[in-house]
Amino acid sequence: MPNVPEVTPVPTSQPFPTGEAEAENTLAGIGEFGLIGRLTQGRSPTRGTLLGPGDDAAVVAAPDGRVVACTDVLVAGVHFRLDWSGPEQIGRKAAAANLADVAAMGAVPTGLLVGLACPPDMPVETLSGLTDGLWAEAQSVGAGVIGGDVTSSPTLVVAVTALGDLEGREAVTRAGARPGDTVALAGRVGWAAAGWAVLARGFRSPVAVVSAHRVPEPPYASGPQAAAAGATAMIDVSDGLLADLGHVARASGVRIDVRTAALAVPARLVDVGAALGVDPMHWLLTGGEDHALAATFPGEPPEGWITIGTVAEGEPEVLVDGRVYDGGPGGWDHFAR
Amino acid sequence: MPNVPEVTPVPTSQPFPTGEAEAENTLAGIGEFGLIGRLTQGRSPTRGTLLGPGDDAAVVAAPDGRVVACTDVLVAGVHFRLDWSGPEQIGRKAAAANLADVAAMGAVPTGLLVGLACPPDMPVETLSGLTDGLWAEAQSVGAGVIGGDVTSSPTLVVAVTALGDLEGREAVTRAGARPGDTVALAGRVGWAAAGWAVLARGFRSPVAVVSAHRVPEPPYASGPQAAAAGATAMIDVSDGLLADLGHVARASGVRIDVRTAALAVPARLVDVGAALGVDPMHWLLTGGEDHALAATFPGEPPEGWITIGTVAEGEPEVLVDGRVYDGGPGGWDHFAR
Repeated sequence: MPNVPEVTPVPTSQPFPTGEAEAENTLAGIGEFGLIGRLTQGRSPTRGTLLGPGDDAAVVAAPDGRVVACTDVLVAGVHFRLDWSGPEQIGRKAAAANLADVAAMGAVPTGLLVGLACPPDMPVETLSGLTDGLWAEAQSVGAGVIGGDVTSSPTLVVAVTALGDLEGREAVTRAGARPGDTVALAGRVGWAAAGWAVLARGFRSPVAVVSAHRVPEPPYASGPQAAAAGATAMIDVSDGLLADLGHVARASGVRIDVRTAALAVPARLVDVGAALGVDPMHWLLTGGEDHALAATFPGEPPEGWITIGTVAEGEPEVLVDGRVYDGGPGGWDHFAR
Repeated sequence: MPNVPEVTPVPTSQPFPTGEAEAENTLAGIGEFGLIGRLTQGRSPTRGTLLGPGDDAAVVAAPDGRVVACTDVLVAGVHFRLDWSGPEQIGRKAAAANLADVAAMGAVPTGLLVGLACPPDMPVETLSGLTDGLWAEAQSVGAGVIGGDVTSSPTLVVAVTALGDLEGREAVTRAGARPGDTVALAGRVGWAAAGWAVLARGFRSPVAVVSAHRVPEPPYASGPQAAAAGATAMIDVSDGLLADLGHVARASGVRIDVRTAALAVPARLVDVGAALGVDPMHWLLTGGEDHALAATFPGEPPEGWITIGTVAEGEPEVLVDGRVYDGGPGGWDHFAR
C-alpha cells in the first residue's frame, strides 16, 4: 500500500509470527516502514489533498460540505488471482470498483485510502505494482491515494475506501425511480464476464475480453452527468445488470422492464460466446465487474447513455422482454451457493 | 459488517470456493444479503449521517469543508485472537484504533466504514458481535457505521476507515513541534502491553490489564481539546510512546527528551511487572494499543494532560532521561524481526 499514516498497533513484540522469509526484496526483508517509504516515494498529491500520507490521518477538501464514502474489500483467490492478473491490473480494478460507486452517487472522486494485508514473504515488486495500479486509476479521475495501512496477513487482502464530492448536486440513490421513467445504461456490460469465462477455461485470449476482466473501464464522468441531468436513481453495475436493477426496483418500489433488443451484443462477445457455447446476452444481463452505470430518468437520458427499458408500477422486480429472466443466476452472493 | 452499500463484484459464478459449511447460523447459510440485513437492522443513523448503509456509497456531513480520513486493517491471528478477546471487544478495538487517529488530528469522528472479509463457516453471531462492538465504540463518540462491505476470505480481516470533522480548527500534524515546546500525554500507556504480556503467558487476570488489552480507552476528547489549546504537534500512541514520539521528532526535525520521573507507574502495573519479572516502565515507554495521545505545546498543556518532557534542537531522536533508551525494542514493525 501506498501511504500509510498509521501503523496498526500491536504490543512490544510480534505475537504470532507469520513467516520466516527475510530476503531483501520481500516485505519481511525491508520491513513495514521500508515498504511504506517505497510505496509513497515520488507521488504527487492531487488538488483536493490538503494533507497526504504520513500522519495519523489525511485531510481532504470537501467543498460541498458533504462527503461521499464507500468501501470495497478484494481478497486474493476470491476476487482476483495473481496468475490471471498482474499486480498493477489488480490495483486498478480495486480502485475502479470504488471510484465507480462514487460516480454512481453523482459525485466526483477526491481520494482513496488503501488497507493492505499481505504475507510477509510477498515480493515488494508485487506491492509496488498494486500501488502503481491504484494510483494510476485514481489519477485518471483526478484523485490520489491519500492514506492507508500495511500489515501482515496469511492472505493478501486489499481494502479500498473512496471519498467523493457532490459539487452541490443531490446524491442520486437507488430509491428514486418512478413509474414512467426511462432506464438507461452508460458503459459496457458483459465484457468482464466473457473474459472471466475465457480465463476460467484456461485461455488467455481474446485479449479484449480478458483485459476487460482484468481492468474495468467504468464511465466515471457519466455519473455526475446523470445527476446533473436529473437522474432519479442510479447504481453501479457490479453484481450484474439484472441483479443491480433489482436493487433499484426494490429500493424504489417499482417494476423495471428491460428490452434485450435495446442491448446490442458486441461482435466480439458474439464470437466468444460461440466459441464457448454461451449465449452472450447472458453475460450482458448477469455479468458484473465492468462497472457500467445504470440510471433512471424522467425523460430521455443525456448523451452517451442508451435507453434499455422503462420503469412501471408493480411488484419490485426486473422483467426481461416481459418475463422473469431464467437464463441463469442473476447475481452474485459471496456466501450462499 | 454492518451495512454494506455495495457487493464486491465477481462474475456470475463463484470462481474459488472457500468452504462447504451452509449451516443456518453461518455466513454460507444465510448468504451475503441475509448477513447484511442482520447486521444493519435496527441501527439508528447518527446526526451527521445524511445517507447511511444500503446504497452505492454513504453521504456524511462535512460542515468544515474538509474531511479527515484514515484506515486501519486488523487481521485475525496477527492483531487479535478470538480465543483472547470476544467479537464485541475486537470490534470496539478496531473502531478505537481509527477513532483515536481522527482525534490525534484534532478532529471529531463523523463516521466509520467497515470492510469485513471472513470465512464462510464463521458463525453469524461472531459477526454480529463484531458489529455490535464497532457500533458501540463509534456511538461513544457520536458517530455511526455509515457503510461497508462483506466478502468471503480464508482469513478474518477487519478493515476500518474513520472520517472526521475539524470544526474549523487547523489539523495538528506530527511535523509542528518546535524547540522549547513541552511534551504532554493524555490517556494511559503501558496497560495494553501489560495485558498482552499476561495473556501471552496463558493467564486471564488481573482483569484490569487484560481488559485494557482487549478494549482500549482512548481519550478521544483530548484531541480536539489539544488542537483548540494550540498544540503544535500530536500523535496517537499506537506503536509505543517512544516509537510514536520518534515519528514526531523525525517529522518535526527536533529532539524530544522524555523524563521517566514524570511518568507515574500505576500500582497495578508495578504488581504485574513484579509477577512477570518485567520493569513496568518498559511497558509505559514501548507499549502500544492504549491509544493515548501525545502532543507538544508552546507552553503548559491544557487540563487533563500531563507534561512528560521537552522539545529541543538536535538530531531527530527521542532521549529518555538524557540517554537513548536501551530497555528493549522501541516499537513495532509488522514485517521485520
